[in-house]
Amino acid sequence: MVELRRDPIRNGWIIINTNRIVDYNSNETTHKHIDEKNCPFCYGNEYMTPFPIVAHNKMGHPATDKKWDIRVIPNKSPVLAIEGELKRSPEGMFDVMTGIGANEVIIETSDHNKHLYSFTNEEFVNVIKVLQGRIKDLKNDIRLEYILPFKNYGYKAGEVICHSNTQLIALPIIPKIVKEEMENSKKYYEIKERCLFCDIMSQEIKDKKRIICENNNFIAFTPFASITPFEVWILPKEHAEDFRNINDRKVYELSQISIEIFKKLYKALNDPAYNMVMHIFPLKQNFIPYYHWHIEIVPKILQTTGFELGTGIKVNPILPEEAAKFLRGIE
Amino acid sequence: MVELRRDPIRNGWIIINTNRIVDYNSNETTHKHIDEKNCPFCYGNEYMTPFPIVAHNKMGHPATDKKWDIRVIPNKSPVLAIEGELKRSPEGMFDVMTGIGANEVIIETSDHNKHLYSFTNEEFVNVIKVLQGRIKDLKNDIRLEYILPFKNYGYKAGEVICHSNTQLIALPIIPKIVKEEMENSKKYYEIKERCLFCDIMSQEIKDKKRIICENNNFIAFTPFASITPFEVWILPKEHAEDFRNINDRKVYELSQISIEIFKKLYKALNDPAYNMVMHIFPLKQNFIPYYHWHIEIVPKILQTTGFELGTGIKVNPILPEEAAKFLRGIE
Repeated sequence: MVELRRDPIRNGWIIINTNRIVDYNSNETTHKHIDEKNCPFCYGNEYMTPFPIVAHNKMGHPATDKKWDIRVIPNKSPVLAIEGELKRSPEGMFDVMTGIGANEVIIETSDHNKHLYSFTNEEFVNVIKVLQGRIKDLKNDIRLEYILPFKNYGYKAGEVICHSNTQLIALPIIPKIVKEEMENSKKYYEIKERCLFCDIMSQEIKDKKRIICENNNFIAFTPFASITPFEVWILPKEHAEDFRNINDRKVYELSQISIEIFKKLYKALNDPAYNMVMHIFPLKQNFIPYYHWHIEIVPKILQTTGFELGTGIKVNPILPEEAAKFLRGIE
Repeated sequence: MVELRRDPIRNGWIIINTNRIVDYNSNETTHKHIDEKNCPFCYGNEYMTPFPIVAHNKMGHPATDKKWDIRVIPNKSPVLAIEGELKRSPEGMFDVMTGIGANEVIIETSDHNKHLYSFTNEEFVNVIKVLQGRIKDLKNDIRLEYILPFKNYGYKAGEVICHSNTQLIALPIIPKIVKEEMENSKKYYEIKERCLFCDIMSQEIKDKKRIICENNNFIAFTPFASITPFEVWILPKEHAEDFRNINDRKVYELSQISIEIFKKLYKALNDPAYNMVMHIFPLKQNFIPYYHWHIEIVPKILQTTGFELGTGIKVNPILPEEAAKFLRGIE
């Protein structure tokens, strides 16, 4: 049973999904170890997963079992279900929507022990290209409004299988946080007639102190109001291009800066658990003058408390300027 | 160094507090064990804590060291600082506010091993009365706009000291989540001319399936759009009374229903970690027709993932109706 329920008081939707496998145990280590023999994402165990949507070799050509380098499969325990009709209905005073969407897993490498911080540029480029392809394909499903690519790295960040993977979830709604970001940047645009994200980049370039690294087309920094220690954002310098259509040069540079950041975090924080999310445009919009796609990387190193739950205010014990300085210094 | 920074993209404020002691280690068990000899909240160790703001015996009379049953102290590592001037200023395009506020700890019992689920009604009543007193007192500080009482129970919920305690944080702003709750219930009131919380209670009473227990003046249920398995809300049935001034009868009944819920959660989930928050009125408002104070109890049994971080949408694998049924059945 999968359905979306609107929260009447806190607003936004929540998903009830009673098909999910729930793991109530916590674990001390970064990863919950699964060995290669039992890993559903390893060579030879393809039968453990649903039939792949995409399977490529490193040249980007279609590949068969035992020859693939990157593989996209439907999540076996999906957050939302791809089949069914999108229906909205009342339930007494409450509001319900059928749990329609897509939940895919990109198995980023066939190597069980390789993680993003040790990817080659070529490997990372392939992940980005496959992601672009999946977004373009899912855009054709008119029931869908938004796609979120995200990564759960490490047990504390919600990782289930320790073999490197990124998920994407396609939704029948524009989610609350994206709506908020869009509304805030729209308000800013209405006053300034400039993109909020572009202005933040100018400020960061002027201040210098929160920048970690940059190349021709991308910049990585710790946000002024970082919600956790060592939060990192990666932004394209040029305004509001569509992630789905960035060219090969930019895909290459995005890979380069991403690997650099993952390497730095690995060394600085001793292989921390983290979540990564990519905020792109809503599917039914091609260009918005006020929104700017970006990547957010949030290390999972602190427990959240009742204060955060009750206020929505994060308490960060590390100055973003200090975190950036520390990361800059790591080779 | 303590300051508030406004998040320009996600809106709302975050707190940078570099004085906080950060514990980067996680722990398998519910509690991080501190024994009585080293517990700053135990008899004989009063010298380990700042001078108390309140110390009472169980009769509610002032008490001295070694004779107290309940004690309120300033948090030794406060999220916000009580001294200083409230100043707002720009920092380039960004916004900063001095980190003024209060952060107090109510040590709820002198017994190191007693937790809310085994409190007597008398003990719980004392906690509520002390809390009412602290809120009334802090209301006199005109720099403050809001007070959040909250509890971190268990290591996964952010608990630092395993001796039973509740904190309160007084803020110079109305926090984002409270604002959201108030704005949503105000919009509802503008259309319906009825309180959203009161209407939810009527719906719950009609549906029955999410109610866990009730008494004359309070009701406890799992919200229709519960953000976690076994989330529980406790609401006063009468509209929008001010928590600070509820009478003795109601304080008694609130204690009774709270203990009952904590007992049920303890038994149902094997002593789970949880956060509890109380949402009361903003300090400078005495009566709001559309807002209704309440308690939210959120067990910390699932890891959050990148999906939640990037969308703000929670995924709950347990139907609130099933959770309520299960809790109802526990004696």
